Amino acid sequence: MKLTVTLPNHHYDLWIEKGILTKVCDWVKKLWKQQKIAIITDETVDQLYGSKISEKLLCAGFEVSKFVFAAGETSKSLATAQEAYDFLADQGFTRTDGILALGGGVVGDLASFVASTYLRGIHFLQVPTTLLAQVDSSIGGKTAVNTKIAKNIVGTFSQPDGVLIDPKVLNTLEDRQVREGIAEIVKYAAIADISLWKKLNSYKDEFELLENVQEVIYACCEIKRKIVEEDEFDNGKRLILNFGHTIGHAIEAVAGFGVITHGEAVAMGMVQMSKVAEKKGLTKPGTMAALISMLEKFHLPTYFSSEQREDLYQAITHDKKARGEKIKIVLLSDIGKGRIVSVTINTMMDYLTAD
Amino acid sequence: MKLTVTLPNHHYDLWIEKGILTKVCDWVKKLWKQQKIAIITDETVDQLYGSKISEKLLCAGFEVSKFVFAAGETSKSLATAQEAYDFLADQGFTRTDGILALGGGVVGDLASFVASTYLRGIHFLQVPTTLLAQVDSSIGGKTAVNTKIAKNIVGTFSQPDGVLIDPKVLNTLEDRQVREGIAEIVKYAAIADISLWKKLNSYKDEFELLENVQEVIYACCEIKRKIVEEDEFDNGKRLILNFGHTIGHAIEAVAGFGVITHGEAVAMGMVQMSKVAEKKGLTKPGTMAALISMLEKFHLPTYFSSEQREDLYQAITHDKKARGEKIKIVLLSDIGKGRIVSVTINTMMDYLTAD
Repeated sequence: MKLTVTLPNHHYDLWIEKGILTKVCDWVKKLWKQQKIAIITDETVDQLYGSKISEKLLCAGFEVSKFVFAAGETSKSLATAQEAYDFLADQGFTRTDGILALGGGVVGDLASFVASTYLRGIHFLQVPTTLLAQVDSSIGGKTAVNTKIAKNIVGTFSQPDGVLIDPKVLNTLEDRQVREGIAEIVKYAAIADISLWKKLNSYKDEFELLENVQEVIYACCEIKRKIVEEDEFDNGKRLILNFGHTIGHAIEAVAGFGVITHGEAVAMGMVQMSKVAEKKGLTKPGTMAALISMLEKFHLPTYFSSEQREDLYQAITHDKKARGEKIKIVLLSDIGKGRIVSVTINTMMDYLTAD
Repeated sequence: MKLTVTLPNHHYDLWIEKGILTKVCDWVKKLWKQQKIAIITDETVDQLYGSKISEKLLCAGFEVSKFVFAAGETSKSLATAQEAYDFLADQGFTRTDGILALGGGVVGDLASFVASTYLRGIHFLQVPTTLLAQVDSSIGGKTAVNTKIAKNIVGTFSQPDGVLIDPKVLNTLEDRQVREGIAEIVKYAAIADISLWKKLNSYKDEFELLENVQEVIYACCEIKRKIVEEDEFDNGKRLILNFGHTIGHAIEAVAGFGVITHGEAVAMGMVQMSKVAEKKGLTKPGTMAALISMLEKFHLPTYFSSEQREDLYQAITHDKKARGEKIKIVLLSDIGKGRIVSVTINTMMDYLTAD
């Protein structure tokens, strides 16, 4: 299955197919002329697929080198970027060469940032290997690294030359990683696609979802494609993708990153927003119950402790309170219909009331 | 005097006028709505203009903060960028806020890189304070930081919202800094503007040039504007700006950065290229003599030692030899007429023959 992202200055294809990783060479050859390729990946993914892919590309006549870093969010730093720049310079990479990112969100975010800034931008291909990256971070052109102070605070907008999505690689994921991706899938359905919602509803568990994951990934990428095409630089509509994320990010931050997965936090955030919005009459009654039932089926958490309320409020409002700003949040009118609403900062206290 | 740079997705004005720095507030207010401004500058420039400008902006109702780093090329690093990101995050800068770069090339390159990558890009204004920055690096949208391995190896293409050029600030420059800028001015005339060349020829020394510097800066920016508009992302014509730079960069690198100024190295590079090109019949006879006479008038060096030949060749060919690549160089057909020529790497040995 193919899907084309069309932007004013660039377009590229996502190729979604079980087992397609074995054809990685044909894919790269179609997109790139003969040149040097650096595979950027982490230790976990490298052990699974690193050698296989580099051998295939070598056979096809590419000059292949590999930059491997320790798995985990702490590697998504300027320090790792610096090592990658030195690696590329050392290998004599020029603007006609390219980077292939092989891994989950951390690998994709870091590698795309490096590709967009080394020599002011070199070619870039993305092979996402987690469900979350396949439905979310591999499409849209947001590159990112963290600093000690905040996540994703440094980055660029820079689109890849192509994205190869092989759902077969999901077999090697741990359950919790799969569920993390499912939380984002539920989000897509909730904000924009009632037919995807019905499909998800029809699966009895995550195993049945995984059997049908190719079409589910396609549906999610298609939703994101439309939104990104309308708002490449994140100035408006793209915010709709943040459903559950305002509270979700705060839950992640308060717990300490890594304790709760991004997907788990988003699941809790979606339920909480809908619960309060229903009470306020902004969301159709029954929406929260539908969300809870869907998320529980996939073993995702739906409640957080009301003791956290003050901490979460601090995490959300942070630098904004001083300026008496408004904040934009995402609510559902109904399942399949998300909308962006502007509220004053202190309204967030209502949205954090857990009981 | 105003000049507008018009690119497909963005346009901005350069405002060139003696004494205009006193009107910095009016300029910022016209371009930006009320918001936070971070002045990024180095210690040297901060002592001269930092407080003056921040006071003016404070009076106009902006929230102003200042990020000051040690003067010099070694500050143009990812480490300084990291400090700047942390500073901005700490001050709660959002995407509606902006950075004003106040300083020479190092400040401009670093601050623009930070502005283009903090939160994936915030607003940016440029106030160049050296002659070199006023005629060269403040126009064109090339942002850059160095790594230990190479200069300008990390960066983005990102245009400012506006550039304010006050030639009056040049009074505080040391002679060698002024001459460094003059070398680039001579380059502009040599590659693209016979009437600017004649004007430069008519000045008896650098003092007379400085009396007329406003129109000279305008002429240079106008040349660069045209070239940048044709080739924003440095894929072709923009290379013409590299006249004297292939050898110049090598001279800087071999001497150790900072020993010879960029302008001095470019001066030597231009003469050397023209000398050999004349011998090869590629440049009109007399061109080298005209260049030497022009550069000597402004106390710029025109020869380098032939002992350096092998080192310079290594510095130029570096990572390219292994790939048997061609290299693009810039020659003059005549004064005012530069052209790009593709030659094999080993031809550079001819171009380095100093006697």
